[in-house]
Amino acid sequence: MMKVAIIGATGHINYVFGGLRELPDVTLAAVSVGSAGETMDKVIHTAQKEGHSPVVYADYMKLLDDVEPDIIAVACYFHDHARITAEALRRGIHVFVEKPIATNLDDLAMLREVYAAAKDKGVHLAAMLGIRYHPAFLTAWHAVSGGALGEVRLLQAQKSYRLGRRGEPFTKRHTYGGTIPWVGSHAIDWVHWYSGQRFETVYATHSTLFNEGHGELELTAQCQFTMSGGAAASVSIDYLRPNEAPSHGDDRIRIAGTAGVLEVRDQQVLLINERQIGVQELPLVPKREIFADFVRQINGEGRCLVSAEDSFYVTEACLRALVSADEKRVVHFE
Amino acid sequence: MMKVAIIGATGHINYVFGGLRELPDVTLAAVSVGSAGETMDKVIHTAQKEGHSPVVYADYMKLLDDVEPDIIAVACYFHDHARITAEALRRGIHVFVEKPIATNLDDLAMLREVYAAAKDKGVHLAAMLGIRYHPAFLTAWHAVSGGALGEVRLLQAQKSYRLGRRGEPFTKRHTYGGTIPWVGSHAIDWVHWYSGQRFETVYATHSTLFNEGHGELELTAQCQFTMSGGAAASVSIDYLRPNEAPSHGDDRIRIAGTAGVLEVRDQQVLLINERQIGVQELPLVPKREIFADFVRQINGEGRCLVSAEDSFYVTEACLRALVSADEKRVVHFE
Repeated sequence: MMKVAIIGATGHINYVFGGLRELPDVTLAAVSVGSAGETMDKVIHTAQKEGHSPVVYADYMKLLDDVEPDIIAVACYFHDHARITAEALRRGIHVFVEKPIATNLDDLAMLREVYAAAKDKGVHLAAMLGIRYHPAFLTAWHAVSGGALGEVRLLQAQKSYRLGRRGEPFTKRHTYGGTIPWVGSHAIDWVHWYSGQRFETVYATHSTLFNEGHGELELTAQCQFTMSGGAAASVSIDYLRPNEAPSHGDDRIRIAGTAGVLEVRDQQVLLINERQIGVQELPLVPKREIFADFVRQINGEGRCLVSAEDSFYVTEACLRALVSADEKRVVHFE
Repeated sequence: MMKVAIIGATGHINYVFGGLRELPDVTLAAVSVGSAGETMDKVIHTAQKEGHSPVVYADYMKLLDDVEPDIIAVACYFHDHARITAEALRRGIHVFVEKPIATNLDDLAMLREVYAAAKDKGVHLAAMLGIRYHPAFLTAWHAVSGGALGEVRLLQAQKSYRLGRRGEPFTKRHTYGGTIPWVGSHAIDWVHWYSGQRFETVYATHSTLFNEGHGELELTAQCQFTMSGGAAASVSIDYLRPNEAPSHGDDRIRIAGTAGVLEVRDQQVLLINERQIGVQELPLVPKREIFADFVRQINGEGRCLVSAEDSFYVTEACLRALVSADEKRVVHFE
């Protein structure tokens, strides 16, 4: 029996519960807050509803000492991801961590170093870049990696959310990390994932204007990337989705290649290429569970779509875009 | 009776014929090639079909001397737009000219100077930014300028065309001017038009890769603009639309504001705001004829949606984006 512990209650903890349903040999042994100010009530409630009886800790260090989990899932206030992840990696614990896995480049460099040592001991890490596992985005990936578009030349990615009322940690750059890493990380991940190319330069912009009292939270952002294979990618990010919209989020990508154009929009995958005249709507592959995949990888039974290297690299791209937007200049990747 | 002459056969001359049908008091007096290598056969054919009997010249200077037209429509090879336009303006002739109205910043500065003098004598100029007059884009403009979105914060514009087989003038930067000015000018115009804001910076990228033997023609381009009111705008431009697509072009814009989000896509206008739950498809206003509107403006009977200042400013924005892409750096507008 493998033991998993949840640390934090702020991010996509539902990924863990979704995975646990497919993992009879994994037990949710314990939970703890990750950041001062969090409450675990909702996580505990969900755990009980799902038939788990985790021990509840008030201090994640004590949890790590007492429970010695095989895996932790980290999703607390975003600036604490890196510290807690590093602590676990040093102890040889596998880590499934909310993105962005670090909120500044120093923390990221520290984490990369800690991971490099842990990796040699067989420790695994993946960021919660879970939209890769959504049926439409996964279907698109099968199509693109299967060559449906030829060479990928242009990508336009979009994240649009409702703002609603966000808690205190979202209103300070120190705890929040910025809208480009928080909301944008998915879209920036898609650019890398679908193109198979590395980031070369980024010019980004963001604005806190009209954020309805959310302090330092940027309401809007856009990033222009150039890629190693000569592709170009634009990423548009906003919290401007009206309450009247039919859904919370409006995630999209359009990918134009030398042999076709594909779009993900409204949970549909639309392809135009030489296979037929007109727009084809691709049948969707089934949803897969990212956390279940991560555990299978640990067990040597598969491979999570999100590698540790992807997790680091996408975080780096987000943080470099953030620097670009803050400093209003082009940032070059090394 | 006003006399109009057509010079060139390369661009959107159909706008002129579309307008003439609404203008019984305007006669198509003459036509001439504008650039060495053009043939007027198609224009003459269309003119005859439409009931016009223009005198055909082989030299536009002789046409200007002999016919003394009130208005010329210029649409030849793109690098010749500025020179012919300037010649006409100096003679006090109104000019309806294909975009981009200049293919480099020097020509644009020259043209601005010539126009400044002509303007004082009541001479009018408009660029063929005719997509403003398409029902969906015009409907969107009425909605946005009517306040349906509140403050405009984010724009994403797209132009996607089939490449097909393009003639020699498209394959040389000198005659073509670049894909950002030629294809992108519409999208860059929308950014300015819908936002009502001025351009502040641009970072752009373009690539000639995979252009199927079209020499210096850029197959793809993207531009990231920051605007004077703090809005951000991305523009994506490509010739990657597959032959199997249901139409030649895929023109789109998405505009996100503080009170709503609007999209133009597939000739539809989709709006989400507080007016109702869900996505509203706006009823389209009727198509209007840009050239007819331009002539009415000359006659003091209205106002063309495309002003001379817009025509210059959008051309400037295109050319600055082109410099950005060529030199791989952020370009600041003055």
